[in-house]
Amino acid sequence: MRAVCVIGLGLIGGSVLRAAARAGRPAWGATTSQPDAAAAAADGATVLPTAEALAMAAERDALVVLAVPLPAVDEVLRVVASTAPTCLLTDVVSVKQPVAEAVARLAPTTRYAGGHPMAGRSVSGWAAGSADLFDGAPWVVATDEETPPDAWRAATELALDCGAHVVPTTASEHDAAVARISHLPHLLAAVLAATGADGGTLALALAAGSFTDGTRVAGTRPELVLAMCEGNRVPLLAAVDEALGRLGAARGALASTGGLAATIRAGHEARTALDDLRAADREQIRIDLTDPEAFEDLRALAAGGGRILHLEGNEAVADLPG
Amino acid sequence: MRAVCVIGLGLIGGSVLRAAARAGRPAWGATTSQPDAAAAAADGATVLPTAEALAMAAERDALVVLAVPLPAVDEVLRVVASTAPTCLLTDVVSVKQPVAEAVARLAPTTRYAGGHPMAGRSVSGWAAGSADLFDGAPWVVATDEETPPDAWRAATELALDCGAHVVPTTASEHDAAVARISHLPHLLAAVLAATGADGGTLALALAAGSFTDGTRVAGTRPELVLAMCEGNRVPLLAAVDEALGRLGAARGALASTGGLAATIRAGHEARTALDDLRAADREQIRIDLTDPEAFEDLRALAAGGGRILHLEGNEAVADLPG
Repeated sequence: MRAVCVIGLGLIGGSVLRAAARAGRPAWGATTSQPDAAAAAADGATVLPTAEALAMAAERDALVVLAVPLPAVDEVLRVVASTAPTCLLTDVVSVKQPVAEAVARLAPTTRYAGGHPMAGRSVSGWAAGSADLFDGAPWVVATDEETPPDAWRAATELALDCGAHVVPTTASEHDAAVARISHLPHLLAAVLAATGADGGTLALALAAGSFTDGTRVAGTRPELVLAMCEGNRVPLLAAVDEALGRLGAARGALASTGGLAATIRAGHEARTALDDLRAADREQIRIDLTDPEAFEDLRALAAGGGRILHLEGNEAVADLPG
Repeated sequence: MRAVCVIGLGLIGGSVLRAAARAGRPAWGATTSQPDAAAAAADGATVLPTAEALAMAAERDALVVLAVPLPAVDEVLRVVASTAPTCLLTDVVSVKQPVAEAVARLAPTTRYAGGHPMAGRSVSGWAAGSADLFDGAPWVVATDEETPPDAWRAATELALDCGAHVVPTTASEHDAAVARISHLPHLLAAVLAATGADGGTLALALAAGSFTDGTRVAGTRPELVLAMCEGNRVPLLAAVDEALGRLGAARGALASTGGLAATIRAGHEARTALDDLRAADREQIRIDLTDPEAFEDLRALAAGGGRILHLEGNEAVADLPG
């Protein structure tokens, strides 16, 4: 089994290290955070200085996993380029296009396939992580035309070994989707929390499930939310504009006819679509990875709500809603 | 113990009936929903035609609880006026000012104190209810200058018997607060769900905790959400305008400097205020209900995040954040 070198040992990186070790893989890591390094070492993890960790990765042909926030990616990539310039490389950063551009600019000889596990908590740091964080979660592996097949396979195997299922799509489709289902929710949670708190202590004292759930992610450390949202600026702008349009239309309807039916029914239909997708019977299919059009088939799978469950030789075993 | 007559046996009314019975009170109900009537009767509840239930309430000086959606309140009040015109009356409808106006117009000789338990679920109907739905929840009892003290006491005793704590505030302050912490969350959940679903099946397949939590209440039956939000039009407009302003400012910042710090930090601060309020040490106080300024003291208690825990003779035992 391929060894794994994780750079960044916060919630996600720390969980990747533990999940890879749980799968029986040799795994080590590095972090510039003293508290994370100490906590990881205390839990028995191998923590090395970044350059040493990467040198060992080069020596053992390990998969290097970038698990730092977007603003720190460039700095790590410079060390990768000097220490492990042809390594297999993936990442778990919340946006894919900007990381791909940084890799092309700063570490162009690495074999890179971006990744993003869709799991998280509103708490952060090594101590908040666990080996089972990704069990059953979707994990995007970038499946662009230019993605090197060996890097794609290494990233996919890691995600599956961590208990996730793999959603193969392009970096840009990933970024557009997460703007809607991850970054916009964080922004709306912040807006809702602030508007609620403006109602004073009485309003907060009356808050029940709808407000508590709707503002949960506003409790996330602001630096992480900012890195994530600001790093996905253009797709997030499109999502915010749609939300503003919908909220403005509701405002207009409420002020004129007093009716919110269009807004509320559209929301109910959308939420029902989510529940239906999750409850759907799923049909198993196989995709031949040696087929020249395999990546196209994989992207079509993801567009239809499909996911890779495991790899068998040169085949991807997948399922999709029936 | 005072008997309770509940009109409307959905999630909330059905839970009030069960919680009152749990407290040892005689309790019966009425509903125009055949499925709720059948389910309640099957669970051993006494279910009567509305006029009969109200006639029994008049005869036994029971507290009548209106537990129908706002659009059905007028019709029930007409039967109250003809059958139990001087009864003690409360309600569990999600807005207080419109119900108070309807009572003044249609059943002016009843002794009325509005109420609103801040507990709910995104499922509805008798079957979804339970005797413990209100345990530990805030329950607003309208504490306006004109609220009759005997009605206020009857509504407060019911709420406390149902396991809730009582937040005594005015109808209009209630309506302004719930616009922010209940109705706006429902509207934003609908906007978020629809904007997410517009990203297609891929986006929904990638949705994790932030989207799932942020859209949970969009799964509520649309008729209930519409009755609630449309019934609180003017306060909701103010809350929507503030949310639109905040989201528009975030949009502008993202498009120009690319920075979302002001929005995200304000949201984080607000959510922290909610968590701090819930975790705060609380100090116990007593309020003399025979004092001519008791209602003023009670409203000040609620404004500071305080709540009534129980009544002892003519005193309210309350606590508030230290």
